Amino acid sequence: MRKPKVVIVGAGYGGLMTIVRLQKLLGVNEADIVLVNKNDYHYETTWLHEASAGTLHHDKVRYDIRNVIDRSKVDFIQDTVVEINKEEKKVILEQGEVSYDYLVIALGGEPETFGIKGLKEYAFGITNVNSSRQLREHIEYQFATYNMEEEKNENRLSIVVGGAGFTGIEFLGELTNRIPKLCQEYDVDFQKVKITCVEAAPTVLPGFDPELVKYAVSQLESKGVEFLIGTAIKECTPDGILVAKGEEEPREIKAGTVVWAAGVRGNAVIEKSGFEAMRGRVKVQPDLRVPGFDDVFIIGDSSLVINEEINRPFPPTAQIAMQQGEVCSRNIAFLIRDKHELESFSFENKGTVCSLGDDDGIGVVFGKKITGSKAAFMKKVVDNRALYMIGGAGLVLKKGKLKVF
Amino acid sequence: MRKPKVVIVGAGYGGLMTIVRLQKLLGVNEADIVLVNKNDYHYETTWLHEASAGTLHHDKVRYDIRNVIDRSKVDFIQDTVVEINKEEKKVILEQGEVSYDYLVIALGGEPETFGIKGLKEYAFGITNVNSSRQLREHIEYQFATYNMEEEKNENRLSIVVGGAGFTGIEFLGELTNRIPKLCQEYDVDFQKVKITCVEAAPTVLPGFDPELVKYAVSQLESKGVEFLIGTAIKECTPDGILVAKGEEEPREIKAGTVVWAAGVRGNAVIEKSGFEAMRGRVKVQPDLRVPGFDDVFIIGDSSLVINEEINRPFPPTAQIAMQQGEVCSRNIAFLIRDKHELESFSFENKGTVCSLGDDDGIGVVFGKKITGSKAAFMKKVVDNRALYMIGGAGLVLKKGKLKVF
Repeated sequence: MRKPKVVIVGAGYGGLMTIVRLQKLLGVNEADIVLVNKNDYHYETTWLHEASAGTLHHDKVRYDIRNVIDRSKVDFIQDTVVEINKEEKKVILEQGEVSYDYLVIALGGEPETFGIKGLKEYAFGITNVNSSRQLREHIEYQFATYNMEEEKNENRLSIVVGGAGFTGIEFLGELTNRIPKLCQEYDVDFQKVKITCVEAAPTVLPGFDPELVKYAVSQLESKGVEFLIGTAIKECTPDGILVAKGEEEPREIKAGTVVWAAGVRGNAVIEKSGFEAMRGRVKVQPDLRVPGFDDVFIIGDSSLVINEEINRPFPPTAQIAMQQGEVCSRNIAFLIRDKHELESFSFENKGTVCSLGDDDGIGVVFGKKITGSKAAFMKKVVDNRALYMIGGAGLVLKKGKLKVF
Repeated sequence: MRKPKVVIVGAGYGGLMTIVRLQKLLGVNEADIVLVNKNDYHYETTWLHEASAGTLHHDKVRYDIRNVIDRSKVDFIQDTVVEINKEEKKVILEQGEVSYDYLVIALGGEPETFGIKGLKEYAFGITNVNSSRQLREHIEYQFATYNMEEEKNENRLSIVVGGAGFTGIEFLGELTNRIPKLCQEYDVDFQKVKITCVEAAPTVLPGFDPELVKYAVSQLESKGVEFLIGTAIKECTPDGILVAKGEEEPREIKAGTVVWAAGVRGNAVIEKSGFEAMRGRVKVQPDLRVPGFDDVFIIGDSSLVINEEINRPFPPTAQIAMQQGEVCSRNIAFLIRDKHELESFSFENKGTVCSLGDDDGIGVVFGKKITGSKAAFMKKVVDNRALYMIGGAGLVLKKGKLKVF
């Protein structure tokens, strides 16, 4: 009898959680499991703001996938997914194709630029290991070049962050801690550095408790960040950005570095493969399968789950992706064992911590508001927990944030 | 009675050696001594190839000038020299001016581009701390960007070094040691990196023993350097360089990084101040004074001393600058003490060691040829000696290359 073949595409939080649970749930003879991923490593998307600011080396935010998969049960293919052929039940890769009986799409999200002119060409992203280290090196190069020029160009020391959501604020926390070190390294006067955060929404960190938001803003302002709230980026140019508040005439903010940290959408593969989607996100059934495709699960940033309390989608986070991975692995085991009553996913919010650098943060944990070093501590606990859930204590010891005190 | 005022401009090897000897030779009441320098630090010009390649941090190649001057005897002014007014005996600075009774010009050299189009605009230099760290960051940024691009541009991994003299070869030695680390850091295939050295002269390291030159070339070739000898750079562009051998049609070598390490000339201030000079270098009297100006000494890269044996100028080196500084300080003391028979300078060649990275090199020391780790060891001895001569054992302990075994 042919064993059913389970293919998981993407080794982010959702994909890896599915794999590590599935390889425990299923015996070697029950299924063939295949993991496809672009890189041979997993990276901690929620730590990329640190690699981007240069406060944590990018090798610390990634680990080899082969460290966490059980190679007696899982075949790993390093390749890039081009498209899903749902009819023939095949994943088309750049270098070949893989057929499946059950498919888990966990490809992660992509930056959403909302069609703003120039962002794709000129703005840097906090998206993956490649983009983060490029951003880090770009900022360093701007500082290194500043003193080389006869006519000093202070725009090289101007950094704009587009977006005051989670990623933008966490990046600003790290960046403001890093700037004094960059100034020392490149003999630059700290007073000449300019950091601006532009947010189109009427508030920083929409959805967060207003008291905590106020704390975060005042902490970052005290470290030199200027916030332009309710202000939209109209265009990004090689020299900076054009912004406008409401119907104002756009004005220019010159900047040697523009970081776009404002939008996430689902993966382009979703639309390319003909799934019905909103900005690349598929509204999945309670069992996490795609309506009309009983053999395809979508989890993580490309899935859309409605928060019934407020009738709006849950924002895509590592927390929800990992919880989906747990349910997804159990549902696949059910299907393989011919049990067709699947488990329904419901998100259990364990809390949210937004870091403001290594030593500061804000958060709501078990319904309690926290700030400062307590929040920074909880952030490290959260980061370590993700490692523990996927790779156990060994991975925490290897890659964990152990200096928690 | 007014004390005579001695002004030394430039805190390189020559200038600092003059200062540290002079402050020992003269009592507080014998003279006012003023040191003028653009930066508040001295940097080891002969170590800049390491900072440029990124094998040694730039803070390790510089030290605070105030660590080596005796502040009870020497006033330090941090400013940039614009011009010397020989008639009014004044040094014109960007922020003011200083009058002198005796002047020592030790301003160092500048890159000579021989009018080759585009070099000033597009090539990087191993000239000072600013240019070295910019070059290091530029190479890193090229590597960091390589994996970010949809269409991989291998020219980003192509580095051209113009000049196979001392600086060019020492830089290549460090660079070839650094490349494997860069490849690992940025997930780049080592095979895709291309390093080319272009030299217009018919040989690498002109003036060096041919057997040693052969050793150096073969060591660097084995680490991936391609040498184009007897080949001139005709132009530098944003995309690379145009080269030609003899009367050949110029051909393009694409490169994301072009380093110009081929020519040194004297300081532009020399010509601007109306001294008679050849490429910014003044042929000084045996007592190191400028013919016709009994109160002006020139030492280091802007001075020209003839090697009588071959009737050609000695190349500008740290060794000759420091020996000139010793004689210069004694001659100033003579003048201040009204002794008008000055000492004549004669260069005593203690040997030359050219490094090929941390662990390899070639050299002639006390007339004996050495290669490999022995030469690398001697190089560190030479480097430490320069520190010792200027700052004593304390400076060697602080900044020295102590891992000599």
